[in-house]
Amino acid sequence: MGLPCLSEVFNFAAGPGVMPAAVLAQAQQEFLNWNGSGLSMLETPFTGEAFKAVLRQARDDLRALLNIPDNYHILFMHGGASAQFSLVPLNLLGGVDRADYVETGYWSRKNMREASRYCNVNIAASSSVTNFDRMPEAWRLDPDAAYCHITSNETANGVQFYDIPASGDLPLVADMTSDFLSRPLDVQRYGLIYAGAQKNIGPAGLTIVIVRDDLLGRAHPATPAVFNYQTQVEADSMLNTPLTYAVYLTGLVFRWIAETGGVTVMARNSEQRSARLYHAIDNSDGFYHCSVQPAYRSRMNVCFTLTHDALTPLFLSAAAAEGLLNLKGHPMAGGVRASLYNAMPETGVAALVNFMQHFTEEHRHHV
Amino acid sequence: MGLPCLSEVFNFAAGPGVMPAAVLAQAQQEFLNWNGSGLSMLETPFTGEAFKAVLRQARDDLRALLNIPDNYHILFMHGGASAQFSLVPLNLLGGVDRADYVETGYWSRKNMREASRYCNVNIAASSSVTNFDRMPEAWRLDPDAAYCHITSNETANGVQFYDIPASGDLPLVADMTSDFLSRPLDVQRYGLIYAGAQKNIGPAGLTIVIVRDDLLGRAHPATPAVFNYQTQVEADSMLNTPLTYAVYLTGLVFRWIAETGGVTVMARNSEQRSARLYHAIDNSDGFYHCSVQPAYRSRMNVCFTLTHDALTPLFLSAAAAEGLLNLKGHPMAGGVRASLYNAMPETGVAALVNFMQHFTEEHRHHV
Repeated sequence: MGLPCLSEVFNFAAGPGVMPAAVLAQAQQEFLNWNGSGLSMLETPFTGEAFKAVLRQARDDLRALLNIPDNYHILFMHGGASAQFSLVPLNLLGGVDRADYVETGYWSRKNMREASRYCNVNIAASSSVTNFDRMPEAWRLDPDAAYCHITSNETANGVQFYDIPASGDLPLVADMTSDFLSRPLDVQRYGLIYAGAQKNIGPAGLTIVIVRDDLLGRAHPATPAVFNYQTQVEADSMLNTPLTYAVYLTGLVFRWIAETGGVTVMARNSEQRSARLYHAIDNSDGFYHCSVQPAYRSRMNVCFTLTHDALTPLFLSAAAAEGLLNLKGHPMAGGVRASLYNAMPETGVAALVNFMQHFTEEHRHHV
Repeated sequence: MGLPCLSEVFNFAAGPGVMPAAVLAQAQQEFLNWNGSGLSMLETPFTGEAFKAVLRQARDDLRALLNIPDNYHILFMHGGASAQFSLVPLNLLGGVDRADYVETGYWSRKNMREASRYCNVNIAASSSVTNFDRMPEAWRLDPDAAYCHITSNETANGVQFYDIPASGDLPLVADMTSDFLSRPLDVQRYGLIYAGAQKNIGPAGLTIVIVRDDLLGRAHPATPAVFNYQTQVEADSMLNTPLTYAVYLTGLVFRWIAETGGVTVMARNSEQRSARLYHAIDNSDGFYHCSVQPAYRSRMNVCFTLTHDALTPLFLSAAAAEGLLNLKGHPMAGGVRASLYNAMPETGVAALVNFMQHFTEEHRHHV
């Protein structure tokens, strides 16, 4: 084994996660002198036309990538997705005292705990009885709820929605932090979509919010002005200083996705990468194990365990020594987690599968 | 004149503003491979020891720079200073229905408007009758207020507090966004200090909060968990994913300040830079004019007008052609504004003064 050769390092972190190499190379190249201005993008005032053009281009590119209809507004907000756990009820309840939540794992649970500080949380569906090994099928929507909230992909558990059940007349709200831009999306099925940037988009802190026009204007009076969807829509996401550097990097990522073929190609690549890894797990004669039902396995976060769990620390350290980094599972789940975001090259998965097979050969007889 | 030579570009933007060249150079150098990890800091997970060490070092360095006593907590928060306009009342009112605000210009006014959504705002002092050309001297504190809020430096008006009046038993709360780390600070006089990063600290979005221990635990129930000072204190600023890249850059800036001599040297340099520019304004035979009373003139944001205001657009475009960038005054104030943050080199001020003198010579006889 020995020290990793830098050219072979692969980052399987759940977030902040791997970014496209081409984006990082461009950002480094123009780090001190953006667009010939003589200034770093970090020093560029947000009130100038140069930055405003960057923000608007990023927004237009995102609209094109996902075919976002005109009656949806795209916001670049502060605070991360966890802030939205509070900001969704603050902005959308509009005086209604209840909301539906679908319980699918660690993150939806955190979300529901926070929402319950603002309203009665109706568990419209849950897979907790099967320890979140699948997405729930039967939904019991409360017709008096203000909205129905789902988490499209659970990073800690490794489950993902493929077919989104209909939410009837209720606005469907989705935390898409961990699979946003990894596949095509029928935006019209949703009332609100939000995503923290640090998975498939860009730097931690920036949050993309896509909100349908008719859901504006419902904010609770205690909502901070900078976190009120309507006031930020009216201010073009610049009511306060936006996350300028993050918006810039995000714009580069949007461009990279478009130039790579768009979200259809992202989806195909992501399906191939994850299928290869799940295949290796399922064909390890029980050395590795994934407890998620095949129809709900996440293409973003492949979570698995070593049947001989005592080997897990050795697996992780040996992987790191080979340049396969940040594979430790979420503390709640334990085991191993390989996050395969858009920027993960196929060679990264190949290297991981190869390592897993060698590790199996070396250690099968010791256990 | 002609096109600017890049080595002569100086950035006088009010924010995001100039950053130390040494910090940018280091960040560019290690952009793709931070600390030998093979990963960019942008891709480094916040849950790993490597990032946690960066955050803790930045916090310790800030504590040392300002001699922050142990009964004060330092937080790295999301949202920018404008979010704090709401989060201060949400966190500090603690059931009290009123707070004191000192009205000193554009930013304190915005702050008060937002605070008035949460409580009765008592104007404890104001300089509005003199059009904010000074800081108010006579304060009428409300003994039943939850706190007294000041804005230590007004970027749009160019006024700055030098002597902070005593706030008695009321916790003194200060928005120090635009002069934080530009001078020594007696932290013990304050209950709460906050500062958006994009002036003297680092990238837009990150907000430094310094809160005295006894002010925790008062948050309104509607306060989002990630914006509750107490929960973030308990979570070491990592209740949600922090602004990892901004925290890293901020740590580099703290180091740069320490290595340059600390806040005492920052203060001396800032005094010299601003004195040189105010001297040029005051000795222009009325060509330039600063309406702020000398005892209250900001060392961060030098705001002035051309007596023949019709020349202002030409002044700004000619300055930009010389590489003197982003000198346009705040829309509320008009005229010219030269922001002289910590990272502005003395040569930048020299170039600006030189340009102003030549501009005067060229245009005095035309007006």
